[in-house]
Amino acid sequence: MEKCRISFLPEKVQVTVEPGVTLMMAAAEAGVEFEGPCGGRGVCGKCKMNIIEGETTGQVLACQYKVSGDLVVEIPRQEVYLNRKTALTEGDWEIETDPGISKLKLQVEPPSLDNQKSDADRLLQALNRPAKLRLDALRALPQALRAEGHAVTVVLAGDEVLAVEAGDRVKQGLYGLAVDIGTTTVVGSLVELTGGKTVAAASAGNTQNIFGADVISRIQHAAKGPKELEQLRRRVVQVINRLSEKLAVSAGIAPREFYQAAIVCNTTMHHLLLGLDPRYLAPAPFIPVVTEMVEIEAREAGLGIHPHAPVYVLPNVAGYVGADTVGVIVSTGLYNVNKSVLAVDIGTNGEIVLALPGRLLTCSTAAGPAFEGAQIKCGMRAQAGAIEKVKIEDKVSYEVIGDVAPKGICGSGIMDAIAEMFRVGVLESNGRLATGERASHLPESIRERIQGTGPQASFILATAEETGGDPVYLTQKDVREVQLAKGAIRAGIEVLLEHGGVSPADLDEVLLAGAFGSYIDKNSALGMGLLPMVPPEKIRAVGNAAGAGAKLALLSRKARQQAVEAARKAEHVELSTWPQFQEAFIRFLNF
Amino acid sequence: MEKCRISFLPEKVQVTVEPGVTLMMAAAEAGVEFEGPCGGRGVCGKCKMNIIEGETTGQVLACQYKVSGDLVVEIPRQEVYLNRKTALTEGDWEIETDPGISKLKLQVEPPSLDNQKSDADRLLQALNRPAKLRLDALRALPQALRAEGHAVTVVLAGDEVLAVEAGDRVKQGLYGLAVDIGTTTVVGSLVELTGGKTVAAASAGNTQNIFGADVISRIQHAAKGPKELEQLRRRVVQVINRLSEKLAVSAGIAPREFYQAAIVCNTTMHHLLLGLDPRYLAPAPFIPVVTEMVEIEAREAGLGIHPHAPVYVLPNVAGYVGADTVGVIVSTGLYNVNKSVLAVDIGTNGEIVLALPGRLLTCSTAAGPAFEGAQIKCGMRAQAGAIEKVKIEDKVSYEVIGDVAPKGICGSGIMDAIAEMFRVGVLESNGRLATGERASHLPESIRERIQGTGPQASFILATAEETGGDPVYLTQKDVREVQLAKGAIRAGIEVLLEHGGVSPADLDEVLLAGAFGSYIDKNSALGMGLLPMVPPEKIRAVGNAAGAGAKLALLSRKARQQAVEAARKAEHVELSTWPQFQEAFIRFLNF
Repeated sequence: MEKCRISFLPEKVQVTVEPGVTLMMAAAEAGVEFEGPCGGRGVCGKCKMNIIEGETTGQVLACQYKVSGDLVVEIPRQEVYLNRKTALTEGDWEIETDPGISKLKLQVEPPSLDNQKSDADRLLQALNRPAKLRLDALRALPQALRAEGHAVTVVLAGDEVLAVEAGDRVKQGLYGLAVDIGTTTVVGSLVELTGGKTVAAASAGNTQNIFGADVISRIQHAAKGPKELEQLRRRVVQVINRLSEKLAVSAGIAPREFYQAAIVCNTTMHHLLLGLDPRYLAPAPFIPVVTEMVEIEAREAGLGIHPHAPVYVLPNVAGYVGADTVGVIVSTGLYNVNKSVLAVDIGTNGEIVLALPGRLLTCSTAAGPAFEGAQIKCGMRAQAGAIEKVKIEDKVSYEVIGDVAPKGICGSGIMDAIAEMFRVGVLESNGRLATGERASHLPESIRERIQGTGPQASFILATAEETGGDPVYLTQKDVREVQLAKGAIRAGIEVLLEHGGVSPADLDEVLLAGAFGSYIDKNSALGMGLLPMVPPEKIRAVGNAAGAGAKLALLSRKARQQAVEAARKAEHVELSTWPQFQEAFIRFLNF
Repeated sequence: MEKCRISFLPEKVQVTVEPGVTLMMAAAEAGVEFEGPCGGRGVCGKCKMNIIEGETTGQVLACQYKVSGDLVVEIPRQEVYLNRKTALTEGDWEIETDPGISKLKLQVEPPSLDNQKSDADRLLQALNRPAKLRLDALRALPQALRAEGHAVTVVLAGDEVLAVEAGDRVKQGLYGLAVDIGTTTVVGSLVELTGGKTVAAASAGNTQNIFGADVISRIQHAAKGPKELEQLRRRVVQVINRLSEKLAVSAGIAPREFYQAAIVCNTTMHHLLLGLDPRYLAPAPFIPVVTEMVEIEAREAGLGIHPHAPVYVLPNVAGYVGADTVGVIVSTGLYNVNKSVLAVDIGTNGEIVLALPGRLLTCSTAAGPAFEGAQIKCGMRAQAGAIEKVKIEDKVSYEVIGDVAPKGICGSGIMDAIAEMFRVGVLESNGRLATGERASHLPESIRERIQGTGPQASFILATAEETGGDPVYLTQKDVREVQLAKGAIRAGIEVLLEHGGVSPADLDEVLLAGAFGSYIDKNSALGMGLLPMVPPEKIRAVGNAAGAGAKLALLSRKARQQAVEAARKAEHVELSTWPQFQEAFIRFLNF
């Protein structure tokens, strides 16, 4: 059969594929951006595309539509992320920058028949210490020397000259890239390395999501073969490179002038970034290829910053406790405490750290993406139109990101809603929606929002009148998703406390990491039983502490050493081998 | 205007170019192999191609023909090189192999829920010493471990694990690649690194030659811009990669199993291989970008062997005394002598080394390619059909490579012919061919071979009857080319001797390096005045001593250190700044 040529708008990218391939795979092959959080299972409905020319026209689900001829396809414009201010912990930590790289201005002697020394030898003479010039520095050297009268600026990493720039470029600053690769979102920060200032930040969706919203789907895709692993690797590298370009533009420099990078991510993202086969992460005993810090060159990782830029991928602790958790440990000072601190990072996985004097315990729970708004009927990311706060009295009140009509609900809204629904009795402690007789104690204004019965029951948060379209509601199934997530996290916390030999009352502090942790209501988290009972004032949101860890690692050799030590020191508790976990899980399913 | 699509046979490679581009550039773009030693000046006639389909058909000079439409072009098959045995100096040197890399078999503990250590950690535990796993080793690790029950073979370079192979692969041997990049020919050798044995060797033309036969033409092309430099870089890398594949096939392994490489070449080839701008090599003061040994990874150089294989590009001494000369110094033991040794490597450039106790002097002369048969009317490479030896008595007798009818004359034949022509009086001491009256002393059988007069004079070595086609002859211009080459080399020798404060009588040994040096008649070389008068028994051919140096560097860390020290120690005499050189040059133009 003839191959099919597919053109994607608005990017105008073309790709040629075999007939029978799904439109999603064709789009993946073309490298165009689109969403597909359910990983091609045809359930989330978010990969809709419009076929403009072809055998049929109209809207299709890209993951279900198999191409059989040439097509012109339009991908609906993604919602622009609302810049909801991310709570970073910058300022929480004081740091002496010591990035391990530096810029130095040199005046080099010009050549002559009396000094026939090579460009490299004359440069090293001016540098006045033994060093090795990397290939890219050698390639730039002859022109750089002769552009501004043999005045050059070198970028040094240890005893290696990474780069040579013409003239005095010291004042322009020395830049590095900190990256936090989430399963859903990738955040990049451009940091000036001598002063430690974050110059610009940008985020983008992790386009690996077309192969599934969760790490297991991605592992399954990668396990199909080297080509599929490479697809995933290329996509995340592409996202980072686009962010780099964006950051470079905003700072008025070129991505080639980013001379160092530090990256945090979970262990699966780590393996996919480096092209390491993640297949043995999925089944017990959950073995990573490597946990130690990986130091490679940008070029080796395919990153479009300076080819010789050192890239530090922070160490992992275990298959499901990754470099992102190590980033949290480093940025919150948990690698060495003289008190008892519990830290919880709620994402698709819930990573939990218990820091005690001389000890560091970690575990991971497969919480699922419920708290990120995924696999929730009206769930959405924390962007314009998302209900982010909910209060239930005689009526339901809520706050919407961007002050627009509500379109859906994000994680913090979901948690608020569940906690409130439980508090007022819409939800029973076993998680069942109160319907019929069991709802009779509720005021009419609330009771009328409960629709259907049994597994089909739902609770309306925003009516069609309020939204100007479909209502926003939580279903019984949504509540079950949240229960499973909450039960897993809480059970993990309990097992870790037991391992550490401390009770909730012994905890001096509970840290909530991650963007989600910054927005949830402490009382809602306590109210729904996500956290053990501690006084609310002991709970502190530390924002994107993983990303802050990446910045610290970028800026300081000491921080990198702390990351290495933290990962080595951590006692990982494998919950699946711990019978207490199952018991606690079942116990904490209830509200 | 429409672009033109050019198909090249027999390779069946297609390329699309702008109209007006020469057929040679189109062929260069397509990456097909062909010869063009004059660099597109339309004088050597060696880039003939047959247009089979197109606006015109028939034979054209590719460098002169500008394409204006689609074409199908056949490139005449190149002469297959006759395997004239290359005199290698193997056996001349005794060596304890110490390549700096090794293979080690390991039995790694399998993972379990009781040992959740990463693959890397368990490997390092079995290795029982601290080491860093390179990215490619990490990528191979999970499958390699699980393929043969966690038995693996690692390739170690210092404290780095370069590669992991499944099972016990120690007995299969450990392989490396030695390369000698000549301006004209590239020679690759596959060496087993533990035993030091050369397993296979192969050579191919340096396809950069379409941009000119000599280094100056190549520098001029590279100086046009980064694209042109990249063209040259890519071509030589391509040649090395093809040789690697050929060598791998002959040894029954994959090029990925070559775990180290050492390369010698002249300074221009060195810069082009590494993508370093060579433009400042050409004009005084002849400045290289770098002279120190360059150690890079195969991947970084674009070589298709193991991506992390260390590649040692031997150091240069100066702009026109390259790593090939350092290779000669290392393989002949000249880096440290207790006698006086002169070494001459005759190629397109004549590099001269004078080794004295505690000293090493070098210089380079732009001899031109006359001794390689280029720019000589009937000149050809040392392959089947080339006259390689000439004797003139009452008649002219000669030996032809491959015992076939003569087609041309190669370097050793040219030198023999010139020496004999001078000896019997066909040539006068000023280089003029004896014609008319001045030939009257010659026997009729010789005199009748002198044709034309003045600048148009020539001397027939093989008649049309003998060749069965065109006669093979030397022209007055050819003699002038040889005179210039010989004068330059001899003058260089004299200046170097003067610098060293020794006379020809003080020399204990004169070494002739290079393939050419192995075949020339000592008496001819002395007879024509190429070498100073020393007893013939002091003259020794050392074959491809530069290539032997590459092999030594591949096999021994000590040899690499000697190369580094030799290059640093060498006192380079820049002939252009030395007035005595001009005097000596003019003096030694005469026979």
